[in-house]
Amino acid sequence: MSSSVHVAGVGSTTFGSHPGRSLQSLAVEAARAALADSNVPAHRISFLFVGNFVGGIMVGQELLGPIVAANLGLSNVAAVKVEAACASSSAAVRIGHDLIRAQAEEAVLVVGVERMTGVPREALTAAMTAAIDQDSEANAGLTFPGFWGLIMARHMHLYGTTREQVAAVTVKNRRFGATNPLAQFQKSVSLEEVMTSAPVADPIRRFDCCPATDGAAAVVLTNEALARKCGSPSVRVAASVLLNGPVRIADYREITIHDGTINAARRAYEKAGVGPEDVDVAELHDCFSIAEIVDSEDLGFFPKGEGGANLTQKPSGRNTKVVINPSGGLLSKGHPTGATGCGQLFEIAMQLRRRHPNQVPQARLGLTHNGGGTAAAVTVHILEALR
Amino acid sequence: MSSSVHVAGVGSTTFGSHPGRSLQSLAVEAARAALADSNVPAHRISFLFVGNFVGGIMVGQELLGPIVAANLGLSNVAAVKVEAACASSSAAVRIGHDLIRAQAEEAVLVVGVERMTGVPREALTAAMTAAIDQDSEANAGLTFPGFWGLIMARHMHLYGTTREQVAAVTVKNRRFGATNPLAQFQKSVSLEEVMTSAPVADPIRRFDCCPATDGAAAVVLTNEALARKCGSPSVRVAASVLLNGPVRIADYREITIHDGTINAARRAYEKAGVGPEDVDVAELHDCFSIAEIVDSEDLGFFPKGEGGANLTQKPSGRNTKVVINPSGGLLSKGHPTGATGCGQLFEIAMQLRRRHPNQVPQARLGLTHNGGGTAAAVTVHILEALR
Repeated sequence: MSSSVHVAGVGSTTFGSHPGRSLQSLAVEAARAALADSNVPAHRISFLFVGNFVGGIMVGQELLGPIVAANLGLSNVAAVKVEAACASSSAAVRIGHDLIRAQAEEAVLVVGVERMTGVPREALTAAMTAAIDQDSEANAGLTFPGFWGLIMARHMHLYGTTREQVAAVTVKNRRFGATNPLAQFQKSVSLEEVMTSAPVADPIRRFDCCPATDGAAAVVLTNEALARKCGSPSVRVAASVLLNGPVRIADYREITIHDGTINAARRAYEKAGVGPEDVDVAELHDCFSIAEIVDSEDLGFFPKGEGGANLTQKPSGRNTKVVINPSGGLLSKGHPTGATGCGQLFEIAMQLRRRHPNQVPQARLGLTHNGGGTAAAVTVHILEALR
Repeated sequence: MSSSVHVAGVGSTTFGSHPGRSLQSLAVEAARAALADSNVPAHRISFLFVGNFVGGIMVGQELLGPIVAANLGLSNVAAVKVEAACASSSAAVRIGHDLIRAQAEEAVLVVGVERMTGVPREALTAAMTAAIDQDSEANAGLTFPGFWGLIMARHMHLYGTTREQVAAVTVKNRRFGATNPLAQFQKSVSLEEVMTSAPVADPIRRFDCCPATDGAAAVVLTNEALARKCGSPSVRVAASVLLNGPVRIADYREITIHDGTINAARRAYEKAGVGPEDVDVAELHDCFSIAEIVDSEDLGFFPKGEGGANLTQKPSGRNTKVVINPSGGLLSKGHPTGATGCGQLFEIAMQLRRRHPNQVPQARLGLTHNGGGTAAAVTVHILEALR
């Protein structure tokens, strides 16, 4: 016996800089918005998951489950923090989904939250490095810009991907972000600006990187009966997958191929009974511009090595109809690490409800892809519009 | 449809000081021991939970789910860290339990781990304070010894609990610890030594406090079919409960009464169809000696205010048969925060399998009580011996 699982409501703060705001205050804002959107009474929530990555390191706050629950007035609930680096809140959604699907819970609230701005860049880089194995590569000096710099150089070398194609990802996502009121960057950039921005980790430049972001996003998941009782169920979770992948460079069979993403996507497509060609809109984990190219290939939207050429085309000019990161993605909407997974689900839910500022016409099937570490923890969610 | 849930195997490192060992190395040692004990092949594990509280703050390591999974050779599993302060790993057990019970998973591995030694006392106190709300009481200077000092003073004031009765808890648990090879403190102390130890937060003294501890413990949970296939199922989970309670002093109706514990215990007894009088052995959260008194009352072993007098009696001298903290408890076995919940389940499983160094004769029903914050996240597990 299993129940279908519904996204009954979503909520979000703006993504950007929120000086003076605590994790709990941001989380509560997003959670209240999601509860109001869902029409599910707070007392029906039996499990609260808070997705958060570096709350301990950045602001010295843990125990966010019970603290956020208390601030929401939820008593006698199970409340925990789930951490899977930048995939923390979508990993929590996977657990909540499974509990509802198996009829262990009726309604679950998942809130993702992070505070990242207002600290020196070195402190932020050090905090992010908590997602690299301290027993090996982190102690050797590896950082995420460094790792993705290696991946970008190798992708260009192996497949002939050009510097312009990679920069075009940022240009596209900045253009989308400019018309998303939740986005951190509301201003377009030119190809020239991306390619001449300050070097970070060769060949990666500043505008190839997502920003440091504060923000929170929340999702209310329910079974079908409650979704129906509280309103008209409009968004169904067709697949919710979390899988691990390699955690060290030495363990990748090839650094431009991310098995965490490939395996999670394969399982998600199987569960949903669809293929990548059926996906209308996707929010994927473009922490760096090259990441959107790698991910779009590993998700099956384009053959390996052809992501660069394809991403610069309009959907009408290629075999795949998917529109990628119309939110602006991590590059432009921003990347409050622990909140990003729920933020992506917020975006796709809005697309499927036809209420998105950058609406993909006729969007019926949406996908999110969220990665912790470099595809060390990968979630893929497939959402379906019901009407 | 639901399955019964079994503790198929347990494993643990020694609790104490493990200089130079990483979180992942300790976690892997405990996990491998639990897998070997369970006889469940590693490839049957589909979900890995790592319970950890201050890995980010203390050693800058997050993403422990995928990292520990990789070190265990587990691929294509869902792997996350669960955090609920000092109740992190037992909270993870609750989630794993629910997934198996609802038949969403067949076998789940939960590992709790912490590194706490080798840093200045101030740094450790600051790290622990991550479990206090930074928006209110933590910023006002509250610490856990401070909070429990208030509770102890008030318990003595309201109920006539004596300084000797509180100290006797430490004496009892140190005596148990002296014969538990996993325990951090292997040496008995006298009532006099406890009562004249250095003041910490009046009336709490040094020997009223649990130590800083490194360690890891792990539990393999399976459904009945797999437990049967891999061996003889010997320990069944009769109840697994996680509930939140107040997170700020201002929110307690009375600081000597912990509703998080009361409500979690009530629900656990209901689920298991037993009462506190049926429990043979309990491992409860004695982070301070006074905590064992408060918890034993809130768990229903003694009426409120009578814990002090009762704990100094032998079980034969009171109405309740329960033996409390024969492991030595947090006070003597040690308190590697994120590992403590799994460590308690390790102890109770060994009791029910009649393999404990401080064996409670005829132990058939065991209980664990684990608290994050000050009963802000509370788990109660009831385990039953099958024979």
